[in-house]
Amino acid sequence: MANIVTNIINPHISVDCVIFGFDDDNLNILLVDRTLKEKKTDHIIFNDFTLTGNHIYEKEDLNDAAHRILYDLTGLKNIYLEQFSVFAHPERLSKPNDKLWLINQGKDPESRIISVGYFALIATNNVTLEWKGRNVDWFPINKIKELAFDHNQILNSALKALQTKLLNEPIGFELLPEKFTLSQLQKVYEVILGTSLDKRNFRKKVSRMKYLIPLNEKQKGVAHKPAQLFVFSREIYEKTKRNVFDFSI
Amino acid sequence: MANIVTNIINPHISVDCVIFGFDDDNLNILLVDRTLKEKKTDHIIFNDFTLTGNHIYEKEDLNDAAHRILYDLTGLKNIYLEQFSVFAHPERLSKPNDKLWLINQGKDPESRIISVGYFALIATNNVTLEWKGRNVDWFPINKIKELAFDHNQILNSALKALQTKLLNEPIGFELLPEKFTLSQLQKVYEVILGTSLDKRNFRKKVSRMKYLIPLNEKQKGVAHKPAQLFVFSREIYEKTKRNVFDFSI
Repeated sequence: MANIVTNIINPHISVDCVIFGFDDDNLNILLVDRTLKEKKTDHIIFNDFTLTGNHIYEKEDLNDAAHRILYDLTGLKNIYLEQFSVFAHPERLSKPNDKLWLINQGKDPESRIISVGYFALIATNNVTLEWKGRNVDWFPINKIKELAFDHNQILNSALKALQTKLLNEPIGFELLPEKFTLSQLQKVYEVILGTSLDKRNFRKKVSRMKYLIPLNEKQKGVAHKPAQLFVFSREIYEKTKRNVFDFSI
Repeated sequence: MANIVTNIINPHISVDCVIFGFDDDNLNILLVDRTLKEKKTDHIIFNDFTLTGNHIYEKEDLNDAAHRILYDLTGLKNIYLEQFSVFAHPERLSKPNDKLWLINQGKDPESRIISVGYFALIATNNVTLEWKGRNVDWFPINKIKELAFDHNQILNSALKALQTKLLNEPIGFELLPEKFTLSQLQKVYEVILGTSLDKRNFRKKVSRMKYLIPLNEKQKGVAHKPAQLFVFSREIYEKTKRNVFDFSI
């Protein structure tokens, strides 16, 4: 991260983070409540949700901005974070509610803002959430309806990027606690890929992953027969991953 | 592409294209001459090279801008083009020559411009180049020295993105003429990955690619024994590519 950052906001560029979390059952997304109220009566004009995002500072690089936004929200510093695409459609902020919201925020709804999309992977239960006095919460990805701005498009694009990445690198571990079971790992693959996987084939694949280390330790406090726990070793993964000669064309 | 675009320039956002070409021997990059001369004497103050890029228009989306820039340069419309990263470091335009150049162009060298990076793949010999009265030419990637702005960083980042893509998808064909030999295909892999590959292993891999169609036709006008020609079938590739169940973790 940058050491010193002056906090003058760049009005043209923002960062939006699609924050994925996993709770043993669902792939969840962190959303921020966007409620517009009439000032005098407190009557709710509309109520919907946005991804977590903000403008970058003038002297700040993009990755620093994305880390800052996540840190403000979660208090966590070493989160898996990846830039995946840029969203710049000239009409991306022009739905009626978006214009109302921007005007209410003292912004020109006609001015163009492009947004750089990041996705983050968080083990849901590790996090206490705060976001500048606004409500934030986790929502199962398959229950998310129309979001603010172009945020459905950003979300879909992030999910595709995550799926591609998961098929090429062992990043599913970022969504799990340090010690996990093979059933939890399989569920991570299933919720991200949106499909169910055959348990036997999955275990066969998994048995070839040298970077998946079995522990001499089992689950505690579960109703069913406790399963063996595993950890992911990034060090062994880095040492054993395919080199370029072994290309799969 | 957008149908109607008003040509007001967005001063904050640009697109830079790393254009890769292949000439049977080298991986080449298309560069634009940046020569700054003293106005009165025509004395050359400095002379270096940039990637091909420009600002986006206010009413134009990013992909449209990238396609427009490539079309202006090559006259070609259906070029393989992919967005790979964003470059936004606050100091990215602040080398002494960059500042001089910007001032000479009537621009404020302190104003911040972020650039969206694309890479393009072109079969070199298909193209007649023109670029608004400036010199453009192909340079072998391993002979490129210090470029303008942060363009070395953009180039390196594009090469990494191309390497990753090549190991996961058959995109090397975009750099070849429609009909090609297996030696040409191997060379494409070698120059992009920056390594030499064993011919026998390569042929073995290739024999499993159902989307590589042998023709009843050989090279013409070559000094050596003419080799068999092949074409790439995107249709067969799309039909036979791995589905998500067959994941390689």
